[in-house]
Amino acid sequence: MHFPFQKFLVCAGTVLALTSSAASAQRRKAKPAAKPAPAAAAAPVPAPVSDSVALRRIFDEALLRGESYENLRYLTGNIGARLSGSPQAQLAVEWGKTTMEKAKFDRVYLQEVMVPHWVRGSKERGEIVGNKDKGIKVPICALGGSIGTGGKLKAGVVEVHSLDEVRNLPEAAVKGKFVFYNRPFNDALIEPGAAYGGAVDQRALGAVEAAKKGAVGALVRSMTSARDDFPHTGTMRPATIPGAALSTNAADKLSQLLKANADLQFELEMECIALPDEKSYNVVGEIKGSKYPDEVITVGGHLDSWDLAQGAHDDGTGCVQSIEALRLLRVAGFKPERTIRAVLFMNEENGTRGGNEYARLAAANKEIHLAAIESDGGGFTPRGFTVEGDAATVAKLAKLAPLLAPYHAAEVTAGHSGTDIEPLQEAVHPKALIGYKCDSQRYFDIHHTAADTFDKVNRRELELGGASMASLIYLLSKYGL
Amino acid sequence: MHFPFQKFLVCAGTVLALTSSAASAQRRKAKPAAKPAPAAAAAPVPAPVSDSVALRRIFDEALLRGESYENLRYLTGNIGARLSGSPQAQLAVEWGKTTMEKAKFDRVYLQEVMVPHWVRGSKERGEIVGNKDKGIKVPICALGGSIGTGGKLKAGVVEVHSLDEVRNLPEAAVKGKFVFYNRPFNDALIEPGAAYGGAVDQRALGAVEAAKKGAVGALVRSMTSARDDFPHTGTMRPATIPGAALSTNAADKLSQLLKANADLQFELEMECIALPDEKSYNVVGEIKGSKYPDEVITVGGHLDSWDLAQGAHDDGTGCVQSIEALRLLRVAGFKPERTIRAVLFMNEENGTRGGNEYARLAAANKEIHLAAIESDGGGFTPRGFTVEGDAATVAKLAKLAPLLAPYHAAEVTAGHSGTDIEPLQEAVHPKALIGYKCDSQRYFDIHHTAADTFDKVNRRELELGGASMASLIYLLSKYGL
Repeated sequence: MHFPFQKFLVCAGTVLALTSSAASAQRRKAKPAAKPAPAAAAAPVPAPVSDSVALRRIFDEALLRGESYENLRYLTGNIGARLSGSPQAQLAVEWGKTTMEKAKFDRVYLQEVMVPHWVRGSKERGEIVGNKDKGIKVPICALGGSIGTGGKLKAGVVEVHSLDEVRNLPEAAVKGKFVFYNRPFNDALIEPGAAYGGAVDQRALGAVEAAKKGAVGALVRSMTSARDDFPHTGTMRPATIPGAALSTNAADKLSQLLKANADLQFELEMECIALPDEKSYNVVGEIKGSKYPDEVITVGGHLDSWDLAQGAHDDGTGCVQSIEALRLLRVAGFKPERTIRAVLFMNEENGTRGGNEYARLAAANKEIHLAAIESDGGGFTPRGFTVEGDAATVAKLAKLAPLLAPYHAAEVTAGHSGTDIEPLQEAVHPKALIGYKCDSQRYFDIHHTAADTFDKVNRRELELGGASMASLIYLLSKYGL
Repeated sequence: MHFPFQKFLVCAGTVLALTSSAASAQRRKAKPAAKPAPAAAAAPVPAPVSDSVALRRIFDEALLRGESYENLRYLTGNIGARLSGSPQAQLAVEWGKTTMEKAKFDRVYLQEVMVPHWVRGSKERGEIVGNKDKGIKVPICALGGSIGTGGKLKAGVVEVHSLDEVRNLPEAAVKGKFVFYNRPFNDALIEPGAAYGGAVDQRALGAVEAAKKGAVGALVRSMTSARDDFPHTGTMRPATIPGAALSTNAADKLSQLLKANADLQFELEMECIALPDEKSYNVVGEIKGSKYPDEVITVGGHLDSWDLAQGAHDDGTGCVQSIEALRLLRVAGFKPERTIRAVLFMNEENGTRGGNEYARLAAANKEIHLAAIESDGGGFTPRGFTVEGDAATVAKLAKLAPLLAPYHAAEVTAGHSGTDIEPLQEAVHPKALIGYKCDSQRYFDIHHTAADTFDKVNRRELELGGASMASLIYLLSKYGL
């Protein structure tokens, strides 16, 4: 589009009116305008302000002087993939601690936790071997936790579309073969997370079920609606046979070739191995509550990522947004009434050891937890929040939500919160577990693949998310639940 | 994130329940599941269904068997940039006509219109020349409609931040120099379109105002919040001096160097030229109304694009969504009560000649227009619709909107509709002019640049938008306004 100039003249007044409080203080190298910006400037001891003004101040800070995007650039670019137990995961722990210290939280500390140490190995290779001499190499990757193939593993292939189909097959049809799980995402579902939930049993339990019938391995269609050449890794339950993901194009190809030649073979080679557990850490930063220091609100993401890429949307964005949420409150001049904690959880992807340890310590220390928020659905444009809590709590949150409508973050619905904060439920019974909800249509295109990189993250979308989380914390800290 | 498996087991029932009506018929090569899909299958003469079922059927068609994404792949990849008057614009007209004919509309035709034919030329170059021998080349591009420089144009630079600043400068400060407009987007604004509206006067009128004070050229900071090396073109008002856009990084660099050396010079070379007007066309496809054939609902996008890239989000997406909206109604088995027209407008970017001609013909033919919808804000994830109309009409539309809530497209607010449909207002007084509103945080990163390419478009986001437009048309056609 081009903005018609007449239209511009008509609405310029509105635009200028909107900007007067914040336009002037532009980020970075941008030249400051003539007038100072009262709302955007952080006052050390601000006069009490209405909630809507407070939220506007938080968003101004995020959008004009936000630090989350540059933090993410560093985490993804200078540290990169950081699977639990890896040296990069340790670097990420150090980065998280330093970043929180620079953000001047009241207290920054580590929580030790032992984590799994699974390693992909240097070689992984998949090939469709038909009647012809030349095989067709296809993009595959080991599923997290898989055993290796112990050299080349070559066998026939039986295609199925569900765990039940395998359970009902005669052993003779499966024994000595690869079971190829090829049920795609249901694209009719509006929420990609629901499509994922409807397909991921194949990845999680495919090898376990196939092994029961004597299969030599499991091949699983990647967990995505996209049609491309990226295999998607992800955790699988411990099994006695190896499990690998095929890119969706590869799965379509294999299925098509199987129709023409049911006797074709697949050759798989993977060197992955489980090493002994490693010592690692959650990273915790805290701002002490001014009025109810013993009541805790947690906000977090997970610091570990899969090993194939930079872990940008999964879950670098959740980490930098959690740090940013506390920083925004501080630089906007708000001293929260309750204690706020940013937590970078270790080992969400293949164990949830960090989340379990955080909950265990909370219970052991007899802490009172009001609520916890997790951002682990990507750093895309905000929608709102999903809540695990009783109906009254969901209703209370829904009543606060209209304050976030100007920022398109006002949706509050019951729903899954976050894997790392859910152990708090049994441990310390917080009133609400809350998931940051952003638009997720692009998420499963890159989830657990080599394509989950910094360039997929939009600066403003990331900043709007961090500010939305900070805003909710501001309100929870002020009003309780 | 990984979807915790326990969680999956808990919600699998819900997922399966949701999918039973639509899961089975999967797109393209995906294997059909065991049971047929009653809601997704297109019945030639369907039994009357509730509005919510009708909309679900439209979305199923879009998400499971949509054609807009592949249409866009062809338009952007095989035709590409298609500025008015170019041979590619003519190819795009032929593509549009063929695509509509394949979609089996009742009638497909062209509307002839003469359009401007501006050509960038093969060379454009910008260089900051300081005291040192070696200049610094920076990414620039001619603004649409600019005259060329007639060889190398070298002059000093005066930086300003508004048109008024130039108007108030003494002539001696400007004469013989480049005026460098460097007011950035106001990042505090939540809607990037508002930030664009607050900055674009520099691009539109910068050269005109600078020429009045004897400047030799206008250099304009690119219209974006992003900090990168893409110059953003876009139309400027006819001026006697050339106008060029600098990438934001280049603008920051120039500003920084000017602070150190106010006497530095800039060298600009551009060969752009305006050729005689060319004959071109709007492409129109129609489904005749079953009950009120004389009442027209228009849905459209613009077929021309700027010349630097593929015009994917601006506005290939609007074109393929408009065609798709009619196709979805047809294949979902709905015969609209009012006449529906998909229009691919020519020359939105630098003249609006197509939009004006469409309106002129509507008036000349004494047509009755109920409403018009335009998609020209990118093919991103849906939010809803903006409406130009009286308060009662906006309220009526807002009352229908909750039907679109399951698809996150239920926002209805007063606001700008679309440049191509606005001429209808004076010509035939439709009840409502409606803009398709999608999430626009990413839009101005790529708008009018070489980066506006197919890979920036997400298939599902595009399809959800087309289905949202089809749904609104379904409701408007049924209920009127």
